[in-house]
Amino acid sequence: MQEEEQKKYLLTAKKAVNTSEWYTQVIINSEFVDYSAVSGMMVFRPDSYFAWDSIKEATDRLLKKAGVQDVYFPLFIPERLLEKEREHVEGFSPEVAWITHTGKSELSERLAVRPTSETIMYDSFSRWIRSWRDLPIQYNIWASVVRWEFKHPTPLLRSREFLWNEGHSAFASLEEAEAERKVILDIYEKILRDFLALPGIRGRKTDREKFSGAIASYSIEHMMPDGYALQGPDHHSDGQNFAKAFDIQFTDRDGSKKYVYQNTYAISTRELGAMVLVHGDDKGLVLPPKLARIQVVIVPIYNNAKKEEVLEYSNLVYESIKNSVRAYLDDRDEYTPGWKYNEWEIKGIPVRLEIGKREMEAKTVTVVRRDTGKKEGAKQVHLDKSLVTLLEEIHSSMYEKALEFLESHTYAVSTYSELKKLVGSGFVQAPWCGSAECEDKIKEETGSKIANLPDGVQEKAKGKTCIYCGKEAKHIANFAKSY
Amino acid sequence: MQEEEQKKYLLTAKKAVNTSEWYTQVIINSEFVDYSAVSGMMVFRPDSYFAWDSIKEATDRLLKKAGVQDVYFPLFIPERLLEKEREHVEGFSPEVAWITHTGKSELSERLAVRPTSETIMYDSFSRWIRSWRDLPIQYNIWASVVRWEFKHPTPLLRSREFLWNEGHSAFASLEEAEAERKVILDIYEKILRDFLALPGIRGRKTDREKFSGAIASYSIEHMMPDGYALQGPDHHSDGQNFAKAFDIQFTDRDGSKKYVYQNTYAISTRELGAMVLVHGDDKGLVLPPKLARIQVVIVPIYNNAKKEEVLEYSNLVYESIKNSVRAYLDDRDEYTPGWKYNEWEIKGIPVRLEIGKREMEAKTVTVVRRDTGKKEGAKQVHLDKSLVTLLEEIHSSMYEKALEFLESHTYAVSTYSELKKLVGSGFVQAPWCGSAECEDKIKEETGSKIANLPDGVQEKAKGKTCIYCGKEAKHIANFAKSY
Repeated sequence: MQEEEQKKYLLTAKKAVNTSEWYTQVIINSEFVDYSAVSGMMVFRPDSYFAWDSIKEATDRLLKKAGVQDVYFPLFIPERLLEKEREHVEGFSPEVAWITHTGKSELSERLAVRPTSETIMYDSFSRWIRSWRDLPIQYNIWASVVRWEFKHPTPLLRSREFLWNEGHSAFASLEEAEAERKVILDIYEKILRDFLALPGIRGRKTDREKFSGAIASYSIEHMMPDGYALQGPDHHSDGQNFAKAFDIQFTDRDGSKKYVYQNTYAISTRELGAMVLVHGDDKGLVLPPKLARIQVVIVPIYNNAKKEEVLEYSNLVYESIKNSVRAYLDDRDEYTPGWKYNEWEIKGIPVRLEIGKREMEAKTVTVVRRDTGKKEGAKQVHLDKSLVTLLEEIHSSMYEKALEFLESHTYAVSTYSELKKLVGSGFVQAPWCGSAECEDKIKEETGSKIANLPDGVQEKAKGKTCIYCGKEAKHIANFAKSY
Repeated sequence: MQEEEQKKYLLTAKKAVNTSEWYTQVIINSEFVDYSAVSGMMVFRPDSYFAWDSIKEATDRLLKKAGVQDVYFPLFIPERLLEKEREHVEGFSPEVAWITHTGKSELSERLAVRPTSETIMYDSFSRWIRSWRDLPIQYNIWASVVRWEFKHPTPLLRSREFLWNEGHSAFASLEEAEAERKVILDIYEKILRDFLALPGIRGRKTDREKFSGAIASYSIEHMMPDGYALQGPDHHSDGQNFAKAFDIQFTDRDGSKKYVYQNTYAISTRELGAMVLVHGDDKGLVLPPKLARIQVVIVPIYNNAKKEEVLEYSNLVYESIKNSVRAYLDDRDEYTPGWKYNEWEIKGIPVRLEIGKREMEAKTVTVVRRDTGKKEGAKQVHLDKSLVTLLEEIHSSMYEKALEFLESHTYAVSTYSELKKLVGSGFVQAPWCGSAECEDKIKEETGSKIANLPDGVQEKAKGKTCIYCGKEAKHIANFAKSY
């Protein structure tokens, strides 16, 4: 074996000791993603792209069922369009990549590479929407966006280019626009639970933390193993802000002209970063089975005497399961079983089947779970069905474990000193008066922001006082340090 | 009805009279695509995006079956990488969009927006490929690319941004690289035939017309209704050109260092333009059923007396077919049946079901085919199955018609004067000596290029003489004026 090959699949950092170094080693050395020739921009290698594509496909199916249609809009946005909505442009302009030349010619107007598509899309909406008959419009694009982050770009988590869906809707009434939010956030929650095995806390963002240009933003917030929050998918109520900036009016049934009400929403490849952080361990990635390009790897173990029989039996096993699970028979002769175990472990493949002389003779396989490391025997007969069940079990158990972590790292407090003690080790839910002053002061003094105002617990604010100013509490706020 | 709405779905140009004006009216007024705020860049509205997504999904499935894996690479390419391969950069640099600034900062090195991904990908390949064990690599990305075309950008056909797949492979030997070509071109041919209902002529490009950077290019060439050729999907043998420029070497089993052999291949949204041109008619688009977002539209016809019963029966019909075909019940009360017929005709929906009092009472429907205009009755019982069969029939008949057109517009000639007479009205296949001088002269004098050297007819060159210089012919060349 080559010296250089032995460096492959190394993982020396410990997740609990140095999460950030561990994260980098895991995603790079497992060949999940890679750096590229452009600083801050990353490469999605086959395993990470497969995971994203699976998320994309499942999300798209649910969005279409909800009446959303896919479209595609230009990658470039003329500067004048980007500047039409003041709040919006202030939110993005520091991060925009600008085209100034094409070929040898200078452009008369700079073009922005899409940091998000509101402005280019709503320019079209303003031409397409004339009558109440044209509404609602519920469009979505799957695209890559560029935001030139300057602080520590990190693959998946803070990349200068990332992939996402961008949903953009226009409705005749505020009620319809509001009703869409639950539908979309339910879809995202389902995708997180059923595909990424990730729980989260759903709620409204504060005005300080909302999307620039929105009247209200809603998010699902994840808790990372180091006690820091990471924002997941979101949904923004844009009200009539963009409609007014882009003159998106329709003639209603009564003949009157009205501005539309709009929403936007997104899920991005950042989720893959959350998935790595939440599920990974000191052996590497742990992929949720539905996102694993290879779900079951078969490793034959043989000495020269029994090689052919063991390989033949391994192949029989492979043939018997390949239509039920995504299987790979690792019959590469040039690597030892130990090397292979290490490779598939750092890559996070959910199940390994070990097949040696003993298994061959007993018509069994040894089944090793990646998530728990548990080893047990299984009969070759009906292995296809038992593997399908096992993958489901692995998924559920990964989700339960993550949920348990989230719940045990969510604290309800009623004083500022409690918050200060707990901050940085999870979500700290505390009564808040709703003023930006208190929010800013708490951020300044503790480094924690309000991730969101969680659904389902807001009633608890009644009768409580703000942990900072002591005035009447209006919300329960989810404080956390964040990624 | 609003004045402005009446302008919708208008089609006044005739395909045979003014193909270019007809094309523009059809794709814009049917709401298939639209112009955008960026000159030369287009919007894919739901129907065109659905068609592309269907092509993408089907192609991707076949590529994966052939061992290809999807990945994603950065949108930007540093100028120094783009310049590593001289021929390549000369091919693209006049069309490159350049990023010079991000936020308020000037970049120290310009970044190109991906016109194609060889250079950024092969920079990674050079780090990933070390040993024969790492080969072959067969990767693919689905992406948008930007080429700042300056002459008459036309939506779908010549757009400054288009969507495509980019296949990029690396093999240990030339033989393996060559073997991939048939697999990929077979996949493309299948997609064209089974999804777009488009035939084409497969063959090798001449050295003049090949991809810059390749040692040989192969293409499938379409014939448009105006007698002009349009290049379809292609596959390029890059040999070791890029491997040498990017230092992609591997250690072979015998310990020696070798450069890899590479291929690239692509199918793009240009195919949708070909599809419109080939199948469309004076009533608008004619969509191949597999690419139609709505395959069957139901139009109820009623007066006030029978409205509820007709709608109820229409709904029963809809419910009975919706799981077998993509159906839409057009029960919009504010439009007349005539308006609806026109709308669905220009949009190219394959089948219309008309349901009035007569159909309701007889438990039938009137079935109208978009491709032929043929109208006939059908029983409501088993309508789901008969519609599935009908859609298949429509697809086959669209393909046959296109094939017949291609065949009747492909001429075999043996003299230059015959070629001059026929040029511009189809493919003119003629013996050619293989020299670039003759190729150039013919192009200069007739405006026709060699689309490709068609497979299957090359033996006919034996014993023939070049139509231009009279020397021994080496090839049968497919001359055509082209898009």
